[in-house]
Amino acid sequence: MAFTNTRTVRIEWGDCDPAGIIFYPRYFNIFDASTAALFERALGMTMVRYLKVFDFVGHPLSRTRARFIRPTRYGDDVTVSSTITFGDSSFDIEHRLNLGDVTCVECSETRVWMVGDPAGPGRSLAVPVPDAVRAKFGA
Amino acid sequence: MAFTNTRTVRIEWGDCDPAGIIFYPRYFNIFDASTAALFERALGMTMVRYLKVFDFVGHPLSRTRARFIRPTRYGDDVTVSSTITFGDSSFDIEHRLNLGDVTCVECSETRVWMVGDPAGPGRSLAVPVPDAVRAKFGA
Amino acid sequence: MAFTNTRTVRIEWGDCDPAGIIFYPRYFNIFDASTAALFERALGMTMVRYLKVFDFVGHPLSRTRARFIRPTRYGDDVTVSSTITFGDSSFDIEHRLNLGDVTCVECSETRVWMVGDPAGPGRSLAVPVPDAVRAKFGA
Amino acid sequence: MAFTNTRTVRIEWGDCDPAGIIFYPRYFNIFDASTAALFERALGMTMVRYLKVFDFVGHPLSRTRARFIRPTRYGDDVTVSSTITFGDSSFDIEHRLNLGDVTCVECSETRVWMVGDPAGPGRSLAVPVPDAVRAKFGA
Repeated sequence: MAFTNTRTVRIEWGDCDPAGIIFYPRYFNIFDASTAALFERALGMTMVRYLKVFDFVGHPLSRTRARFIRPTRYGDDVTVSSTITFGDSSFDIEHRLNLGDVTCVECSETRVWMVGDPAGPGRSLAVPVPDAVRAKFGA
Repeated sequence: MAFTNTRTVRIEWGDCDPAGIIFYPRYFNIFDASTAALFERALGMTMVRYLKVFDFVGHPLSRTRARFIRPTRYGDDVTVSSTITFGDSSFDIEHRLNLGDVTCVECSETRVWMVGDPAGPGRSLAVPVPDAVRAKFGA
Repeated sequence: MAFTNTRTVRIEWGDCDPAGIIFYPRYFNIFDASTAALFERALGMTMVRYLKVFDFVGHPLSRTRARFIRPTRYGDDVTVSSTITFGDSSFDIEHRLNLGDVTCVECSETRVWMVGDPAGPGRSLAVPVPDAVRAKFGA
Repeated sequence: MAFTNTRTVRIEWGDCDPAGIIFYPRYFNIFDASTAALFERALGMTMVRYLKVFDFVGHPLSRTRARFIRPTRYGDDVTVSSTITFGDSSFDIEHRLNLGDVTCVECSETRVWMVGDPAGPGRSLAVPVPDAVRAKFGA
């Protein structure tokens, strides 16, 4: 089962480049915050808090793939729908960024769940997403 | 008379540095968007639109001064109150960024109103803020 | 035949997040500037100039895929090798970001060559990369 | 006595906004990295290392003031000269950003030297800059 969160984001003046369109690296700022918002909604707490409660160091990206279909411009209020699906030791998030009915960007992230490595301070290792976390997503 | 707009901004993970606090240049992204929001509210249209309606090229910064009183951290939902006062040929905006009741940053901007220079294509010059714009702010 | 450019980039404090590693969207800032540097080296002029000389509006991204193998940290001086290969109506750039001998990120971009659309002012359309440009890359 | 460091910075496409000029918050990214470069040159080690060697948590900004005289544009190679002067419990850095002979931005930072607070884990307090550090700057 997939779990989806949608939020609205304003494309700001400072997000855009001399061509008058968004500078594409800024989309990844938006997607990263969308992933945080997805977790916050499912877990019912902020990222600051859920990192502590579930005692892990983060869910860094191992891969991302994005397709840029139409540009967006400053002043655009876009919607970002983010859907998570869990694998064994990683999870995928699909972001769809729309301006009204038109999809402007599709992005697919693969992330891993990292905990502190008991064998070495300051190091971390990937482990399966805990069942308690999956349960919150209905997965 | 002063005109004030207040908005809420989430400090994101990507805004923060290895010390765990906001990387201070990001405050100026927030303040720039707060100035745009102030104009949008007073003029009743987006920045994209008001640049065209009032036929000017922008209101670039000539000076900024900021005082950093307390750091903010990812997950903080801060409020930014922005107050404009008009001078003869420039205007000032005071931004106060609060976390709850505590003021974390104070910033004071001086901006000028720039129009295309009829004497030279691609050039621009500072002129007094039009009365039609001042009127919208009750100034 | 492929054409490669390599440059060195310092990972700055402000590029890094509270986990002490680079905030991944910043890699795309680095890759975008690496693509500009590649063109500048092949064409022998800055991007500002080559946009005018070849009379086009840019080479926007249509797709990007990145794999994050190891994190980088502030103070790291990384090398980015960027290799271009031309297709019929688009071109690919492979970026390899290394810290010493270790590859930390691999990124593959697909870009298109856009010119102003004679049928509509303010619009643009994708065309084949001009032969004069390909020749500069030895392609 | 004052100590000065100068470095060259390329204004990148992604630093600029739809008006075709640098988006001013990006200047503070440049100035922050210029302060780090100044310390690195005086202390003969990277920021990563000097934070450890001198056992402090950083030198956060308490105030900044900037004056924007002329805009810069993508492709500009600007020079930033940064001069430090020490006070009793803080220090000032003056950044002058030039395009050739023309000064485009002047910025004045006040920073404090922060160490971990022995009275409270996770807290920090401002102390005078150590003599060993001042000596490296010839101050």
